[in-house]
Amino acid sequence: MVFLNGEFIKKNQAHISVMDRGFLFGDGVYEVIPIYNGKIFRLDEHLLRLQTSLDSIKIKNPYSPKKWDSILNKLLKFYNNQEQSIYLQISRGISNKRQHSFSNLTPTVYIESNILLTKTKETLRTGFSAITQPDIRWSRCDIKSTSLLANVMYSQQAKEKNVEEIILYQNTQVTEGATSNVFMIKNNTLYTHPTNVHILSGITRDLVLESAKAYHISIQETSFSIDELNTADELWISSSTREIMPITKVDNKLINNGHIGNVWSRVYDYYQSLKNV
Amino acid sequence: MVFLNGEFIKKNQAHISVMDRGFLFGDGVYEVIPIYNGKIFRLDEHLLRLQTSLDSIKIKNPYSPKKWDSILNKLLKFYNNQEQSIYLQISRGISNKRQHSFSNLTPTVYIESNILLTKTKETLRTGFSAITQPDIRWSRCDIKSTSLLANVMYSQQAKEKNVEEIILYQNTQVTEGATSNVFMIKNNTLYTHPTNVHILSGITRDLVLESAKAYHISIQETSFSIDELNTADELWISSSTREIMPITKVDNKLINNGHIGNVWSRVYDYYQSLKNV
Repeated sequence: MVFLNGEFIKKNQAHISVMDRGFLFGDGVYEVIPIYNGKIFRLDEHLLRLQTSLDSIKIKNPYSPKKWDSILNKLLKFYNNQEQSIYLQISRGISNKRQHSFSNLTPTVYIESNILLTKTKETLRTGFSAITQPDIRWSRCDIKSTSLLANVMYSQQAKEKNVEEIILYQNTQVTEGATSNVFMIKNNTLYTHPTNVHILSGITRDLVLESAKAYHISIQETSFSIDELNTADELWISSSTREIMPITKVDNKLINNGHIGNVWSRVYDYYQSLKNV
Repeated sequence: MVFLNGEFIKKNQAHISVMDRGFLFGDGVYEVIPIYNGKIFRLDEHLLRLQTSLDSIKIKNPYSPKKWDSILNKLLKFYNNQEQSIYLQISRGISNKRQHSFSNLTPTVYIESNILLTKTKETLRTGFSAITQPDIRWSRCDIKSTSLLANVMYSQQAKEKNVEEIILYQNTQVTEGATSNVFMIKNNTLYTHPTNVHILSGITRDLVLESAKAYHISIQETSFSIDELNTADELWISSSTREIMPITKVDNKLINNGHIGNVWSRVYDYYQSLKNV
């Protein structure tokens, strides 16, 4: 079952008009929210980010936080899995004429939930590969929008090159991954790109920072270069579905001689403990 | 009537799955093709550009040029208008799971046609206003993709500020309009941004150059700055639906004291003559 515009229906019966601006213009925003132990994880934070995205593109939020909570929990009742991932999309709605500018429309709301299969710590310990690419995306990556073609192209490239992620850079400075935030440990300091228009302010990114703080690891929200990345003590990527994933090879060069770091292990454990709250 | 995946159906019955990647990711491309005197204008050029867009994002063209010609002409039989505008969109198709990377899918093809109301020369003579904005779009504007949120935001701003177009610049250099190409006449030379990843290679742009050549106007496909734009003898924007439109005010500063230029008038006439071929 999925949710579409107020109704719970079968996924194969969930259809939208071709005039939906989500289809015609990529004119919408979305969230991906993990469910741990049957509970929605950090819902307030996700709803806050959703609101920020909606405000940025002038779509009125169709529901109050309480209503969102109720809808999501109703949807979850159709599933038995304790670990799930909710996908929630709001598009601007249906125009009767295709033109870029818009008037007030009734937003289209689509929500689905899928089993969330997170990797075990043992699996993560093997480390993952990434490659770097110039960041060709637009300058409003802070909006979690469905105009995702650049990210689609990067992810396809990752799949074809058999790497976990594409790490992006602008003028030598690392911004983020195609579908993740990027962190570097160097001399016991955690570095990550500051939140601005060039990256998405990840909920998991905040949790990584929260976990690092718990261990009194020094945090620098400043950008770092590809050269610095290559000499990192540890390199991680984070996202709601990947959690915190260690990267041990970038562009075929080993990070920390291909070894997982100690800081990752501790921060990962703390993140896991947050899930059980 | 509209065309959707092989069938001619009523527009209000044209629906797609919520799992269409056009809806989830803005993962598609499109064309807008004018019909003049009941005939499809420059179809070969539009199909060639469509092919380039499809190749860039690795979607297989579902139809041969002959088949496209046949489908479009069948659709046009449902309309009596001699002047129309065809909108044609191809998305990558329907995934059974939402993930950025893709496998081979059957593309979704949607086509509609609408009355094309072009402005008369007399109306165009009054001139139009534009404002300038930094170009925040991605670095593959050569792909005519449906990930159009940046363009939507610009067009909305144009509507709110009551101007015809937003003229974009990167580091002081004019790229193009939010939904048009930009041309400047200075000392009897026509300047326009060269075709590269920062602009869409407009079919109308080519026709403007073709028309200018017919009058032996010197053509420079080089970028020009916002400062140069402000001292232009003439300024135009072009698109399939706008044709060639004179801009006489930018950011509240008059271009050529607010007067339409002679070069525009001649090039406009030549463009009109091309429509009747």
